[in-house]
Amino acid sequence: MSNIFEDLARQLVSAGHALYAHGMVPATSGNLSARVSPEVIAITVSGAHKGHLTSADIMPIDNVGNSLDGRRPSAETGLHTQIYSAFPEAGAILHHHSPRATLISQLAGDEVLLSDYELLKAFPGINTHETVVSVPVFPNDQDIHRLSEKIRGRMQSPGPLFGYLIRGHGLYTWADTVDRAMIHVEAFEFLFRCELMKREVR
Amino acid sequence: MSNIFEDLARQLVSAGHALYAHGMVPATSGNLSARVSPEVIAITVSGAHKGHLTSADIMPIDNVGNSLDGRRPSAETGLHTQIYSAFPEAGAILHHHSPRATLISQLAGDEVLLSDYELLKAFPGINTHETVVSVPVFPNDQDIHRLSEKIRGRMQSPGPLFGYLIRGHGLYTWADTVDRAMIHVEAFEFLFRCELMKREVR
Amino acid sequence: MSNIFEDLARQLVSAGHALYAHGMVPATSGNLSARVSPEVIAITVSGAHKGHLTSADIMPIDNVGNSLDGRRPSAETGLHTQIYSAFPEAGAILHHHSPRATLISQLAGDEVLLSDYELLKAFPGINTHETVVSVPVFPNDQDIHRLSEKIRGRMQSPGPLFGYLIRGHGLYTWADTVDRAMIHVEAFEFLFRCELMKREVR
Amino acid sequence: MSNIFEDLARQLVSAGHALYAHGMVPATSGNLSARVSPEVIAITVSGAHKGHLTSADIMPIDNVGNSLDGRRPSAETGLHTQIYSAFPEAGAILHHHSPRATLISQLAGDEVLLSDYELLKAFPGINTHETVVSVPVFPNDQDIHRLSEKIRGRMQSPGPLFGYLIRGHGLYTWADTVDRAMIHVEAFEFLFRCELMKREVR
Repeated sequence: MSNIFEDLARQLVSAGHALYAHGMVPATSGNLSARVSPEVIAITVSGAHKGHLTSADIMPIDNVGNSLDGRRPSAETGLHTQIYSAFPEAGAILHHHSPRATLISQLAGDEVLLSDYELLKAFPGINTHETVVSVPVFPNDQDIHRLSEKIRGRMQSPGPLFGYLIRGHGLYTWADTVDRAMIHVEAFEFLFRCELMKREVR
Repeated sequence: MSNIFEDLARQLVSAGHALYAHGMVPATSGNLSARVSPEVIAITVSGAHKGHLTSADIMPIDNVGNSLDGRRPSAETGLHTQIYSAFPEAGAILHHHSPRATLISQLAGDEVLLSDYELLKAFPGINTHETVVSVPVFPNDQDIHRLSEKIRGRMQSPGPLFGYLIRGHGLYTWADTVDRAMIHVEAFEFLFRCELMKREVR
Repeated sequence: MSNIFEDLARQLVSAGHALYAHGMVPATSGNLSARVSPEVIAITVSGAHKGHLTSADIMPIDNVGNSLDGRRPSAETGLHTQIYSAFPEAGAILHHHSPRATLISQLAGDEVLLSDYELLKAFPGINTHETVVSVPVFPNDQDIHRLSEKIRGRMQSPGPLFGYLIRGHGLYTWADTVDRAMIHVEAFEFLFRCELMKREVR
Repeated sequence: MSNIFEDLARQLVSAGHALYAHGMVPATSGNLSARVSPEVIAITVSGAHKGHLTSADIMPIDNVGNSLDGRRPSAETGLHTQIYSAFPEAGAILHHHSPRATLISQLAGDEVLLSDYELLKAFPGINTHETVVSVPVFPNDQDIHRLSEKIRGRMQSPGPLFGYLIRGHGLYTWADTVDRAMIHVEAFEFLFRCELMKREVR
């Protein structure tokens, strides 16, 4: 494997451990990837426990999701390749199942609207709290192709998209680097937590 | 002791520390076991603090619960041997007292029903969120024999069983290995947390 | 200092770090002590941060609260000496300010009643969940002598006493050893958490 | 750089790591500073991730906010220099974005009133729980000069001021040393948590 692959694999392992430590990828949930080159993506193998992740659990696929080393990639690989195809600037994708992302996806309608938070400035191009960030919520579907078709329409509509929720399932977010994708995870988790707390208090 | 016993004891110690770190076995609560052979079970001794657990706190019993080293096993040993007897594929049992497992056992009726969560796929044989997993809730009883009689009926009824709750007490769950039993703990804790959060929000 | 003092000081330091790590002694709150001999008590000095505690922050006092090394002991020393005097079996006292202990003390009337929890068995002499443990709640008072007078009556009444709350302030609990006093802290924290969660859900 | 600068930079790095570990500075939020001399302030550079902070991320500015090393200081530098100017005893300022500080700033009106907590004694000059501490809440504004003008009036009014909230944004607090500013953070976080829990329970 190339040095770039190995370096990105180490970053994904580190991200997996951090997500697990924060309770965001319970059991064997979640999957993580990074773009190695225009033709190659590094992604977690199917069924790996993110808290025990090692570089050996990161495998190469091509940009339409075919395994390049004979192993089976994450069952949701099609959602990763769709994001890399739609967003040329995306270099890393993190998908987690935090309790808060799961719950807000179940409570919300078609989208979660976030506004009046200073932390919205964590997303690229957002310079003020006086904005509205929309996080679309799609119904869960075990047929990944069918699920990706539902997502495609939103990806083609105008307006920035920093991540999306799948109902009862979790969040997909991406950025140019693994580190910045983790910053998006932190920002979304914070924002979902605040939104849920608002519904808990009188 | 055999190498298998020693290896399983180390795995149980590690599971105990992880459960304690997550606040799931406060004080000296909880008990853990693994099947060493058809005739021998490794189980935590009575009253051990799971956060300070060492291999010396794991003792052998036979498959009806008799001590094989003269020490007193966990007071709830009868529930462990019942599970190993009813489920030949069970290789490890984890019983914890998380606040969430305790609370949901007090709020629920005869069962907790879990559906529309992607994470349900953490349980063996579950391939879709479009399913319903039932977690039975039994009234607490200091008479372990009487308690096991109440549990026996549900064990013999059809439908998969991945764990059960004892009201005001905690969760029992099992799997073929200690690692996979921990995955069940993580999945149940996540699902109970989501269910409780749903009751907290407007 | 005697070896016993030094050993107990190390145990109190360790307990302080654990309490701090769990957010139970924020800022410089909380105080900790252990009985060295019938005449000598080891106690935290006034104003020490429990997360940075070292053995040098533990000082000797006599059994009526006089400093034995010229330093100023915790402002609440009088509550510690009162407990050691009333309960000859008490060997260690932990006083913490967890958010949950604080909140339940503000929501409750004259006592918090705990029942139907398996975890009640963490307290000495409790063998079943079918019991009621009363935790009295006293109004806060900056005059420690006056506060101890209010507490005295309850100490002399029949029925076991494993700890008490001061309103808006925190919990006092004790046991024969520092380790067992920590088990009481863990048990109370779990029980208060369950009680508060019950008030949060529908 | 002077030894004093280097020592304060290390303290700020340590504070940043602690704040991050407690989820109080998600993404790249928050900023931290300390007074090196009457003319020089050490402050975090713009956009640094507080969980990965190193001494190289701390830069010197003068007391009106001009960079002394050519780098760009935190965008909110003007709020730091205002506090140092208004409070000659202030030696360190910590600004964090905890979910609780954010939420209480959104729920409260012009101020959060805190009373009947023993922990209020963590603030200088407070000797009893029978007091009221006011934490003013200012509307957020991306124009830091305009924001500081709104804050100026409250700084000049009588009554102690231990910190202030910016709505949807976070808390500013200060003290003579970095360690004591962290004690204020811990005390405020505890108090906000208790206040929010009171709104969650029945």
